[in-house]
Amino acid sequence: MKIGLLGFGTVGSAFYALARECDQTEIARLLVLEKLPQVACEQTTDYADIVNDPAIDTVVELIGGLHPAYEFVTAALKAGKNVVTANKQLVCACYDELIALAEQNGVALRCTAAAGGGIPWLHSLARLTPCDRITAVSGIMNGTTNYILSAMTDQGTDYADNLREAQRLGYAEADPTADVEGYDARRKLVLSANIAFGVSIREEEVPCFGISGITAQDIAAFKRLGLVCKLIAHAELTVKGVAACVEPVLFPVSGQMAHVNGPDNLISLKAQRVGVQSFAGAGAGGFPTASNVLADCLEIMDGCAPFYVRERKPLSVQNDGLRQRYYVRTADGTDSRLLTVREAHALAATYKNNQQPFFMAAVAEE
Amino acid sequence: MKIGLLGFGTVGSAFYALARECDQTEIARLLVLEKLPQVACEQTTDYADIVNDPAIDTVVELIGGLHPAYEFVTAALKAGKNVVTANKQLVCACYDELIALAEQNGVALRCTAAAGGGIPWLHSLARLTPCDRITAVSGIMNGTTNYILSAMTDQGTDYADNLREAQRLGYAEADPTADVEGYDARRKLVLSANIAFGVSIREEEVPCFGISGITAQDIAAFKRLGLVCKLIAHAELTVKGVAACVEPVLFPVSGQMAHVNGPDNLISLKAQRVGVQSFAGAGAGGFPTASNVLADCLEIMDGCAPFYVRERKPLSVQNDGLRQRYYVRTADGTDSRLLTVREAHALAATYKNNQQPFFMAAVAEE
Repeated sequence: MKIGLLGFGTVGSAFYALARECDQTEIARLLVLEKLPQVACEQTTDYADIVNDPAIDTVVELIGGLHPAYEFVTAALKAGKNVVTANKQLVCACYDELIALAEQNGVALRCTAAAGGGIPWLHSLARLTPCDRITAVSGIMNGTTNYILSAMTDQGTDYADNLREAQRLGYAEADPTADVEGYDARRKLVLSANIAFGVSIREEEVPCFGISGITAQDIAAFKRLGLVCKLIAHAELTVKGVAACVEPVLFPVSGQMAHVNGPDNLISLKAQRVGVQSFAGAGAGGFPTASNVLADCLEIMDGCAPFYVRERKPLSVQNDGLRQRYYVRTADGTDSRLLTVREAHALAATYKNNQQPFFMAAVAEE
Repeated sequence: MKIGLLGFGTVGSAFYALARECDQTEIARLLVLEKLPQVACEQTTDYADIVNDPAIDTVVELIGGLHPAYEFVTAALKAGKNVVTANKQLVCACYDELIALAEQNGVALRCTAAAGGGIPWLHSLARLTPCDRITAVSGIMNGTTNYILSAMTDQGTDYADNLREAQRLGYAEADPTADVEGYDARRKLVLSANIAFGVSIREEEVPCFGISGITAQDIAAFKRLGLVCKLIAHAELTVKGVAACVEPVLFPVSGQMAHVNGPDNLISLKAQRVGVQSFAGAGAGGFPTASNVLADCLEIMDGCAPFYVRERKPLSVQNDGLRQRYYVRTADGTDSRLLTVREAHALAATYKNNQQPFFMAAVAEE
């Protein structure tokens, strides 16, 4: 396989190292902003050199972000090249369009590393869908927030201190918004749900309540109740459509979920035939993510089906049907309320708009 | 895909139902001991009708056991038919020979359901091997023993009572030897290690110490120490070769492993690039297992590579290198000893040969 590699950041440079070790792949050309002295392969700063090179059969996009990744990926598909990407923002926003382009041009589009880092999660969903009816996908899909919540629980320390520590360790970015507000987890959730259920829900339909408002006092209150807080992305098929949200959830300390610590991910599916299956591991990081990208490349070489969902059911997000107990903390104190997901997130939005203190967490069913 | 299905037991009948629902697969003929009135497809009691039918491209073997499964599978491969099987006993004993036959005849041989039931475990190992160096495989690979140990831990009851309850619930067979002595887990371990490490270790090289000697007093002693007992199959690459064994292991109650309860499996791999990845779910049962068999069939149809390991390193089992702390209980009382895996299992064999009471469990490292 002759690869045009876009990007040489954390994942890009790890992929470069792995692909050079593998005897089935060759990095024919690398797109960089500025040529790098430490790289042995041919480099270019002009994408045209890659998309117009007939020797390159596969483009590996590891730039991230919507632009210019979108332009590069669509041009590659139109030029009849396979695309492998770890770009969750891109595939979440444009999955249907990109899959249609890949089909029209008879090439493959794979993105296993876009959710779960090194975990073969999307791959396993795609493997299961023709054999079973998946009814829920759920879990810890963001390592940064799990690191922060684990540290707050272990040490009783404040949110701000642990966010700084996560930034120092490289788990959180300088602008942590996408992680701590749940937007990163939401992208992975949308991608997972669309593949698992064969639907086309959109990011903006899914309500998201993150952990930036959590306090050491909240954590202490959960501890007294024997509960541990995790940021959970959840989607399930209901009679009305797809219920989906990202929100903090409280789990009993005696259960498995409470013991997933640090930056790890734990993601589960529920299906009619196989029941509940869980996948855990490093949800981010250069080498784990790059390894999943390389595995996608090798499966394309082997001739496996391009990774996508054949049918698309016209279901949208409907959060009226899912009713849960919520821990709610406002300036007036804490209480417990039975709310639908729609009601809970509407309440959160009201407090946010009024800039009043607020935190909520759903209580997991046993 | 036109399938010749061998067997109509728990997994066979579940596969029959799934394959008939799937629009890409057709059960062309079913091999049974005696024709069944409730089955709509063509039936035969003579395997020659299947192996000589040129319309059948794939044989799905769900009879189990070594014979006549071995004769049927080798004949199918020689006749140029793909084989999908869930038969761990067969693939564990004859993997190299069967893979060579499949290669010679240009067909696929897949057996994802042979370890982990519905979990895409062997599939994920095979996906990872060309991208990373897997250095360990480990976990709860037998649901029956995990059910018994969980129940003993929860209720403080005796081994014999819980074995009877497991038999009543259908988790254990009338002759529970293969489960409780660890032989079932050992087969799955050998298969996992051979695929993960690219080696050819054999069942009889791997020492096995089961749970039939455990008492309610042992469990109570573990509880006082904050430990939970699980039957673990473990293999890792060492400087000397492959260290591999099946034995009870004690985990801290505060960790994840202690909370895998009932008949579920939890299996992990450790690799240089992706770190530790875990897979959990139903490790047995008709529909979960059948779903994994069907997924293998569909991947063969899609043209994915036949599932096997390309290289075979000439490594054998060497248990001198792995030293652990063991809880040891004899007629003289209990104590804690630092032993190599080889020493521990030699000690167990001595007590067994002398028919003296003995139980041991390794203490997991933090």
